[in-house]
Amino acid sequence: MTTSINRPEIDLNADLGESFGQWTTGDDEAMLDVVTSANIACGFHAGDPIGMRRTCRAAVERGVVPGAHVGYRDLAGFGRRFMDIAPDELEADVLYQLGALDGMCRSLGGALRYVKPHGALYHRASTDPVQAAAVADAVVAHDPALTMVGLPGSRLLEAARERGLSIVGEAFADRAYNPDGSLVSRREPGAVVHDADSVAHRVVALASTGRMRAVDGTEIELDADTVCIHGDSPGAVAMARAVRAALDEAGIAVRPFMAGAPA
Amino acid sequence: MTTSINRPEIDLNADLGESFGQWTTGDDEAMLDVVTSANIACGFHAGDPIGMRRTCRAAVERGVVPGAHVGYRDLAGFGRRFMDIAPDELEADVLYQLGALDGMCRSLGGALRYVKPHGALYHRASTDPVQAAAVADAVVAHDPALTMVGLPGSRLLEAARERGLSIVGEAFADRAYNPDGSLVSRREPGAVVHDADSVAHRVVALASTGRMRAVDGTEIELDADTVCIHGDSPGAVAMARAVRAALDEAGIAVRPFMAGAPA
Amino acid sequence: MTTSINRPEIDLNADLGESFGQWTTGDDEAMLDVVTSANIACGFHAGDPIGMRRTCRAAVERGVVPGAHVGYRDLAGFGRRFMDIAPDELEADVLYQLGALDGMCRSLGGALRYVKPHGALYHRASTDPVQAAAVADAVVAHDPALTMVGLPGSRLLEAARERGLSIVGEAFADRAYNPDGSLVSRREPGAVVHDADSVAHRVVALASTGRMRAVDGTEIELDADTVCIHGDSPGAVAMARAVRAALDEAGIAVRPFMAGAPA
Amino acid sequence: MTTSINRPEIDLNADLGESFGQWTTGDDEAMLDVVTSANIACGFHAGDPIGMRRTCRAAVERGVVPGAHVGYRDLAGFGRRFMDIAPDELEADVLYQLGALDGMCRSLGGALRYVKPHGALYHRASTDPVQAAAVADAVVAHDPALTMVGLPGSRLLEAARERGLSIVGEAFADRAYNPDGSLVSRREPGAVVHDADSVAHRVVALASTGRMRAVDGTEIELDADTVCIHGDSPGAVAMARAVRAALDEAGIAVRPFMAGAPA
Repeated sequence: MTTSINRPEIDLNADLGESFGQWTTGDDEAMLDVVTSANIACGFHAGDPIGMRRTCRAAVERGVVPGAHVGYRDLAGFGRRFMDIAPDELEADVLYQLGALDGMCRSLGGALRYVKPHGALYHRASTDPVQAAAVADAVVAHDPALTMVGLPGSRLLEAARERGLSIVGEAFADRAYNPDGSLVSRREPGAVVHDADSVAHRVVALASTGRMRAVDGTEIELDADTVCIHGDSPGAVAMARAVRAALDEAGIAVRPFMAGAPA
Repeated sequence: MTTSINRPEIDLNADLGESFGQWTTGDDEAMLDVVTSANIACGFHAGDPIGMRRTCRAAVERGVVPGAHVGYRDLAGFGRRFMDIAPDELEADVLYQLGALDGMCRSLGGALRYVKPHGALYHRASTDPVQAAAVADAVVAHDPALTMVGLPGSRLLEAARERGLSIVGEAFADRAYNPDGSLVSRREPGAVVHDADSVAHRVVALASTGRMRAVDGTEIELDADTVCIHGDSPGAVAMARAVRAALDEAGIAVRPFMAGAPA
Repeated sequence: MTTSINRPEIDLNADLGESFGQWTTGDDEAMLDVVTSANIACGFHAGDPIGMRRTCRAAVERGVVPGAHVGYRDLAGFGRRFMDIAPDELEADVLYQLGALDGMCRSLGGALRYVKPHGALYHRASTDPVQAAAVADAVVAHDPALTMVGLPGSRLLEAARERGLSIVGEAFADRAYNPDGSLVSRREPGAVVHDADSVAHRVVALASTGRMRAVDGTEIELDADTVCIHGDSPGAVAMARAVRAALDEAGIAVRPFMAGAPA
Repeated sequence: MTTSINRPEIDLNADLGESFGQWTTGDDEAMLDVVTSANIACGFHAGDPIGMRRTCRAAVERGVVPGAHVGYRDLAGFGRRFMDIAPDELEADVLYQLGALDGMCRSLGGALRYVKPHGALYHRASTDPVQAAAVADAVVAHDPALTMVGLPGSRLLEAARERGLSIVGEAFADRAYNPDGSLVSRREPGAVVHDADSVAHRVVALASTGRMRAVDGTEIELDADTVCIHGDSPGAVAMARAVRAALDEAGIAVRPFMAGAPA
């Protein structure tokens, strides 16, 4: 948890740019008025060039920090299906996505600043050192000044740190946690918190104390400088606004984790 | 035709990186030993990330100048079918491809230096000012230091020049020309020259005199600083070597049209 | 206009099954409670297998007649961009789509009964005899008992009739018509009628009289036995229900144009 | 091993129709002159409609039995990467492919007769009862008269048999076997037999005796009525011809395992 003197602060991120052709997902502009970091789809699990460009532009205009939401090449599965891809192919796939998105950001006066894998790749790279290394290798190859965002304690962040990348741990606003700090599986009841007030309360608590209450009631520490707010469900914008309002009211600064880096 | 003092020179380019997954096209490494500029596929009409990376690396290692061979999003049609795509979508599609390839080149210590549209986009942008403008806008948005390669006198080169881009005209080693400087349609007999010696002779003549013999026997002027050698047909490598050998023998320097630019 | 004794009748069709992976389009189940013919996407412009199957099942369960909504291979463009595809490739692409959808229908106890091209293919095949012939050839190759649905007087219906296929003309509930019976271009004001009551009134008039009022106020004849109701816009379901209610109230039977054919 | 009176017989199958757009794989026509069953790609791991149709036609013309070579939706990976797809999605994906290919066969006067999964799906469904069941459910849904081809003793054949499908075990002409009847992993030396004479000898031995020599020299029994000959490697056609010639010389009938079924 980054703190400046006496005032705690937190970054809010959301998955954006996930439309494709005729199909739209979420309300990117509304979410960009709330969050401080934008995980932008890169065309492999979602996102087409014109939509990615629109989201990049809206992010850059608002000073929201652009990050690459890289995924498996699987539009039909939205990148949510594990693929047993060879590490050199995965590295090249990630490198391709980083270049495509970074080029778009730069053409709009911005620049890619961080990388957060999407969906099944995010989960796989949390525990599989081979896929974690492939993602980290691609990030280093593209730009060693990029930050890697992932689950605190994950193989992904470990691989990134070993390669000299900056790392940032992420918490999920609306996901329940086990006492060991892992996420409650979506197959179990109570895995997702649906009440906006409860979600807002959890984020404020985390930002203030670095702790969150697990499903069994115990308090756990989470080494997270950014909190993911889901942007694609009905009511996503309302929940995001509730979280942001609660943070503002609690006097917690909402600012990008990349705030100190050169723009 | 660029000349240095008394010695003529010419650039040779080829379409490379056009494999996809299990499917291979041409012998990129062998062609890269012959040509001086590499038009590398960007994943839309052909090319997957791992193959693009391999071709980029082989080009950079040999000092062959990398260019982006951008195309329509049509793997099934290899980018050879005209698509009536809106200009803002086309611009974004091209921008995406440029970023992806440039990122790969930069990760290997090189940099994208020019753009040459592929297939149906090449032909459409030669005559359609709307698609020509969309391609040129994307190139300017990505990097105004890039050079546009296209048919001499085409709408594409006109749009590029109007936007301040450098332009280079291209001739085709194995294609017959009409007296007005246009290509003989592939539907007509004699459109393609298959004999390696004839092709080599034509390229030497063009590099020496700036002229080529048209199908009717007349001599035409071609404002071309680069000559495209096809790399995907059987016998392509042998023909490329024959052209190169003939140029060497004639004392014509084969060097990149981008030779003077900073690496 | 088919009539049975003194009572007019009409078929209502809608474009369905157009979701893809995570992305949903329209409310197929609600629309299937209103229409009598379902144009189901076949995976080329939209539609993935699991979603197509779901829509097929919902159609078969309700006795709604399944038709194939075949399109260009262009998910990113939703089949709305003309592609200059060779006729033998187009024929094979359509044949593939017909087999895939028909197989799904048959596995659910139904059967494909008609074909209506989608988007840019629909429009192109209305005027281009080559693409019209390719589509019709594919339909004949798959099953000569299928009916072709298209614009009255179109090349598509002409090509279908020449090959012995049954044909059915289609009108659009919410599109304005020129005095010559063609559709007002979407680029012109007033091309689309947005008011549900007006749309319902137009359909009742067409079903009762075989005529519709054109943009200039003149009455035109439309040889249409089916009326397309758009299912993918906001308010689509409400408009569809308004049309259906108005037809019921006017005593016009809403039944499939394929009603007489063996199920 | 099927035998007719005193004369042994065997079926030869090959993976065909695996070209895509501009990219060609193997020499389908030459292989179809050798084999008796054709595993035809269905568009998900390889195969485009026009190429599938060409291969179907060539198979039907020669009386070679068409089978569906269904795979994961992964052109970039050629269906060789395991995908953790949900069973209902996999079932729908397989059903879609079966319909598309069967429609093509029927339009040419033939009919789909069997199903053999491809690549990673083949291997996964050999050991994973969930994916095996999904594939078998799709085959039953499409046509319960189809035969399932797979590894002898595999989960796939077990799931097929449980659902009342006919099953046929397959051996691989050029793959080394472990003493327990499993294939030697491609990562180990000697996994693939490259010498045409050795391959031919192995197939003759298997067809004559139902046995094959494993890597450790022991003789193992293989309950296989069809032998797969790879068609996509250089020298594939020559090896296929050598196998066929050796079988002919040994007096072993080469005929489809589906020979007894109605055409």
